Amino acid sequence: MTDKYAQLVHHGVGRNVAKKLGLPQPAALRRYQPGQPLITGPVLVQGNSADADNLAAELLSWDLDVRRHAVPREKLGAIILALDEVASPGDLEKPILTAAASLRDLAPGGRVVTVSRPASEADSPAAAAARQGIDGFLRSLAKELRGGATGNGIVLRQGVQATSASSLAALRFFLSGRSAFVDGQFITVSSASGEPARDVDQPLAGKIAVVTGAARGIGAAIARTLHRDGATLILVDVPAAGDQLAAVANEVRGTALQLDISRDDAGQRIIGHAAQRHGRLDIMVHNAGITRDKLLANMDHSKWSSVIGINITAQLRINEALLASEHFRESPRIVSVASTSGIAGNRGQTNYAASKAGVMGMVRASAPLLAAHGGSINAVAPGFIETEMTARIPFAVREIGRRLNSLQQGGRPTDVAETIAFLASDAAAGINGEVLRVCGQNMVGA
Amino acid sequence: MTDKYAQLVHHGVGRNVAKKLGLPQPAALRRYQPGQPLITGPVLVQGNSADADNLAAELLSWDLDVRRHAVPREKLGAIILALDEVASPGDLEKPILTAAASLRDLAPGGRVVTVSRPASEADSPAAAAARQGIDGFLRSLAKELRGGATGNGIVLRQGVQATSASSLAALRFFLSGRSAFVDGQFITVSSASGEPARDVDQPLAGKIAVVTGAARGIGAAIARTLHRDGATLILVDVPAAGDQLAAVANEVRGTALQLDISRDDAGQRIIGHAAQRHGRLDIMVHNAGITRDKLLANMDHSKWSSVIGINITAQLRINEALLASEHFRESPRIVSVASTSGIAGNRGQTNYAASKAGVMGMVRASAPLLAAHGGSINAVAPGFIETEMTARIPFAVREIGRRLNSLQQGGRPTDVAETIAFLASDAAAGINGEVLRVCGQNMVGA
Repeated sequence: MTDKYAQLVHHGVGRNVAKKLGLPQPAALRRYQPGQPLITGPVLVQGNSADADNLAAELLSWDLDVRRHAVPREKLGAIILALDEVASPGDLEKPILTAAASLRDLAPGGRVVTVSRPASEADSPAAAAARQGIDGFLRSLAKELRGGATGNGIVLRQGVQATSASSLAALRFFLSGRSAFVDGQFITVSSASGEPARDVDQPLAGKIAVVTGAARGIGAAIARTLHRDGATLILVDVPAAGDQLAAVANEVRGTALQLDISRDDAGQRIIGHAAQRHGRLDIMVHNAGITRDKLLANMDHSKWSSVIGINITAQLRINEALLASEHFRESPRIVSVASTSGIAGNRGQTNYAASKAGVMGMVRASAPLLAAHGGSINAVAPGFIETEMTARIPFAVREIGRRLNSLQQGGRPTDVAETIAFLASDAAAGINGEVLRVCGQNMVGA
Repeated sequence: MTDKYAQLVHHGVGRNVAKKLGLPQPAALRRYQPGQPLITGPVLVQGNSADADNLAAELLSWDLDVRRHAVPREKLGAIILALDEVASPGDLEKPILTAAASLRDLAPGGRVVTVSRPASEADSPAAAAARQGIDGFLRSLAKELRGGATGNGIVLRQGVQATSASSLAALRFFLSGRSAFVDGQFITVSSASGEPARDVDQPLAGKIAVVTGAARGIGAAIARTLHRDGATLILVDVPAAGDQLAAVANEVRGTALQLDISRDDAGQRIIGHAAQRHGRLDIMVHNAGITRDKLLANMDHSKWSSVIGINITAQLRINEALLASEHFRESPRIVSVASTSGIAGNRGQTNYAASKAGVMGMVRASAPLLAAHGGSINAVAPGFIETEMTARIPFAVREIGRRLNSLQQGGRPTDVAETIAFLASDAAAGINGEVLRVCGQNMVGA
């Protein structure tokens, strides 16, 4: 799973050859390690709104160097662009071109983060145009950044302040190495729910979390990341993966639950296991999923129904059982793993894409049910992630899948896991019913 | 503007070489010509809902051969898949796998069209999952179809029947050669507004239409298409393009209005011209737009403000003037040209993408204002369209832009024009606030 291509194009002769051929030379991404600073270098906060002032003050309290005006030739860790007060497209120019002048000073692994309001809530066509314009702007800018730098945006619904718990949680996530492979994306904060993290290095301390499909790959990475962030884990996988599951469970000091999640009583078994051992469940991570690729013309019942059954029907049934239980009531959190295939479709994956689009539909429709208990349900949509599964893809196809994104490389299972940990945290409770792509802004035909 | 690549890979030695190298061999698309049949070959209507029955009856009244059950080895013009009653993901299998068995019989240039309900209006997470699942399914299937066949969907909001005027208009559009370059897309019908076309070959008969940027390229194609469909035209372009504008105006027997649309009084000038000559205006097509590409780090005031000013601010100002006028009140229609760059962003186009995203924000926010007068406002988002502008792109970049979509070729200006003519027609009045991509389902990093 090491990226031999990256090693090749960055060293010795390979580096010169790659440059001459115009091959992509992906940058090493800045990924989170416990204890490391949130970001290196000052953060420039642009914009004249009250939110800009408040954010600058907040960032100072995080022990960051904050600039309200650029210092020539000073390397910047991040640029935050408060665009929450734009009322017409003409209002975009001043803050954006002011920020543009500092772009050359953005350090490798740097961050650009916009803060804005939803176009759908604008009170005039001009305001809607300005707000939606930020979307096109930011997604373009993300494609221009180099050196592993990323651009993402926070969208605050009416009544939500830039300094609300979930807005700050999103900002911290985007600034940190936790969001290394999230690029060109927006997170909408829909409510002021959520409590600031007491310990930003252990945001899941005291939480009881279930992860399905935890025996290997992305599921095992999720287990390790939630454990690192303080959660107590219950790991679920099929009996056939029992040994691997036990090994991961031992590693993260959790318990293993061998279970076929497509069983009718899977939800009851999960909540029963959690209630018996811990008295409750706080976080449910639906990671288990399968692929059975086939062109639709050759698709059969078994391939179609197994993918739909495991990837979406099982999640629906489990959620129903959890939501009916008194043991899943204190700010309950659900995070599902979707896929960019569910957004854009994928050749040979009508079944898989239907199931993953289904996950996204389920998440949006279930949001009010979770909000009723102060909780949330969200999905992450991974793009090309380097796993044992993708390692078996033929070289040329794999190379294309890997490079066809703004970061010119595949992501790692930890990138998905970090995003899930963020969405499951108390501070992020105001983010509900969202789908967040973890894909390096990859190219998909939608 | 002829596609030399397509000629090369389809004939003689080139064909064999292309096959061996695995180069894409794009199919010739079935494009609309007046008088041609809507579609060749029987239409298979799958699904057991009342809507399926009603649609089948309606298609019979269009003089089409209609099948409710597949006849083995009979070539099909289209497959319509009524999925409007799915209540959980398990409900998808039967209709989808039944349709799958007929896929090999779909003729070149064939069509698959789904009919469904919005996930956002579902009454349970399971229903939302099933409905959203159709999105992932259809987008995947569109990537599997070959021979210039396309797959698209019609989404009917609550209270809108499958046989409503705009639903049938959308179905006719998708089945016809007018939608040749529209692939993997959904059209939402939001209301039962709209009147069935009296003459399907002259759907714009008697309408007064303005097209901006009409002197060349896509604008001139829009003028020709609206003229062919029966509209009386007022063509707008800058004074510097006066001669070309006059030539197009002569060709379509319209009038020319030399005007810089970024002038404060552009809207008044346009409505004044229309009112003076025709007593009213029915259709406004905002096509005029410019690009001034530059990486944001090198962007200056002139490049930013000219693109924002012409591409979005001018449209906002003109719409305001039109909506204030008593001469734009009878089912008034606005169609704006956006861009896939506005959806996904594009390197070097922060200004352009902001302006085109702005157009989409404007369209959604303005929908209620137009609906108040029985009208609509929508946008089309072209992908790679073969024009004089794209002909100047360097060969390799152009080839990538052209091929990176499900139809493996660039579209033509007429493809954009046909979509605009459809959205401007009386029958389509129930489609409002939508953005329809005309891009062959192209790959964009969103």
